[in-house]
Amino acid sequence: MKSVSIQGIRGSFHHEAVNRFFHDQKMEIIDSPTFKTVVMDVINGKANYGMMAIENSIAGAILPNYSLITKYGLHIIGEVVLPIKHHLLALPGETLDSINEVRTHPMALLQCENFLEKYPSWKLLSKDDTATCAYHIHIKKMKGVATIGSKLAAQMYQLHILAENIHDVSDNYTRFYLLSATPEKIENFTKASLYFTTDHTMGSLAKVLNILAKYKMNITKIQSVPLTGSIFQYSFHADINTPGGDDTNYRMALNEIKNTTGFLHILGEYKEDKIKK
Amino acid sequence: MKSVSIQGIRGSFHHEAVNRFFHDQKMEIIDSPTFKTVVMDVINGKANYGMMAIENSIAGAILPNYSLITKYGLHIIGEVVLPIKHHLLALPGETLDSINEVRTHPMALLQCENFLEKYPSWKLLSKDDTATCAYHIHIKKMKGVATIGSKLAAQMYQLHILAENIHDVSDNYTRFYLLSATPEKIENFTKASLYFTTDHTMGSLAKVLNILAKYKMNITKIQSVPLTGSIFQYSFHADINTPGGDDTNYRMALNEIKNTTGFLHILGEYKEDKIKK
Repeated sequence: MKSVSIQGIRGSFHHEAVNRFFHDQKMEIIDSPTFKTVVMDVINGKANYGMMAIENSIAGAILPNYSLITKYGLHIIGEVVLPIKHHLLALPGETLDSINEVRTHPMALLQCENFLEKYPSWKLLSKDDTATCAYHIHIKKMKGVATIGSKLAAQMYQLHILAENIHDVSDNYTRFYLLSATPEKIENFTKASLYFTTDHTMGSLAKVLNILAKYKMNITKIQSVPLTGSIFQYSFHADINTPGGDDTNYRMALNEIKNTTGFLHILGEYKEDKIKK
Repeated sequence: MKSVSIQGIRGSFHHEAVNRFFHDQKMEIIDSPTFKTVVMDVINGKANYGMMAIENSIAGAILPNYSLITKYGLHIIGEVVLPIKHHLLALPGETLDSINEVRTHPMALLQCENFLEKYPSWKLLSKDDTATCAYHIHIKKMKGVATIGSKLAAQMYQLHILAENIHDVSDNYTRFYLLSATPEKIENFTKASLYFTTDHTMGSLAKVLNILAKYKMNITKIQSVPLTGSIFQYSFHADINTPGGDDTNYRMALNEIKNTTGFLHILGEYKEDKIKK
């Protein structure tokens, strides 16, 4: 059986992402405390793959995770887009009135601010991940304590859903990348993630985009990496749609881009995960 | 005396941003609980200006704040780039051994993860903002409790710095926008923030960038807004450098872009804040 390292424990959104990607295929889930340790699990061969959140429709990109991918030379071999639905979970028998503490991941607290504001007396505790909180509430029979998490977490740790869909914004999606230490050829890939630098001459980014347009590659995402030092060079993350069959045009586009950019790294070629609305 | 509404209270990074922007000019600071209420203070005339974080070099853009600016039609009239330095603050007399709880904003917890991991016994509490925690520790004489915050907060609330520069990444900058309800002409502005949509035809973004290149406008930031619904239209936030004097070329570029994009909104024209390294 193949294994996937996830940030957090079973019942987390990362676990849901694995289920969505592999469908019925049985995978061994390896719990890993941080994004860095997920990457290490993959690099050291402890896991075949790593599943890692990369972008949220509300909060934007998780730039440090892009850095981990490039720093350790991992390959993106798949994409998952998961609707994020936050629920308030607690032991069976609890009510909104009996809760006095909510412990969950700080990102979940941020995404449920409007709901939490209605209960100013609740103590809000930041913890490493949502599913671990659900596990602790279950195993330690923690009364008066709720967590914010997924339905999968509620099922796995036999918690009751006290309030459903408590996230502020309903259009909340998180994109995940399935990562591998070795390249894996994905037949008929429909998407590619590029990372490139341009010099500071006017229009150097435009040149790259013109080449993509010439070869009919659509851009689904572009983001400059915020400047922290040099103002003479910029780096960009761009995702593009590829034809999903004959990749001649795509290869020709890459060759031309290589001559324009200071540096071009293909982070991965994989199948797009389309959101069904 | 003119007034600025800030998210949080005096001693916060928003307060530091106001000090950096207005230098010696005395401003009335209006504490406001959320980014939304900051916007409301400006719209309702309670404050002349609002200071709002928009982007962090590690975490990326705060996309919901871009939405607030566009939704309420605010004008960006200034920019502040502030180095973010997190310190562990507590009552005088405390030591790292006497601390058992850290209460601060979830983003500060996220940015100091490596440091906090060294003290697994500390209880981590999420609170609305860092400066309010500093204020409470001071006013309630809270023993064994630390917060993560700025030197300004330590000074204002007479706290002791238990550990300096505890943030994971040293190149941590936050960009803020100074916002106004009415447009304000900034003489010799050197930067502009644009928000535009393009259709899904190949190369529509490239067309916009070509126009900018033709008129020698450099892009300092570009970001597509993550898809949540329609896949037929994209919107982008782009910051560009303008000549800082004669704005003829800039105006001509905007006119050409208007003919290319579905929608072009100038969020602001203001002076760039250059980071001194």
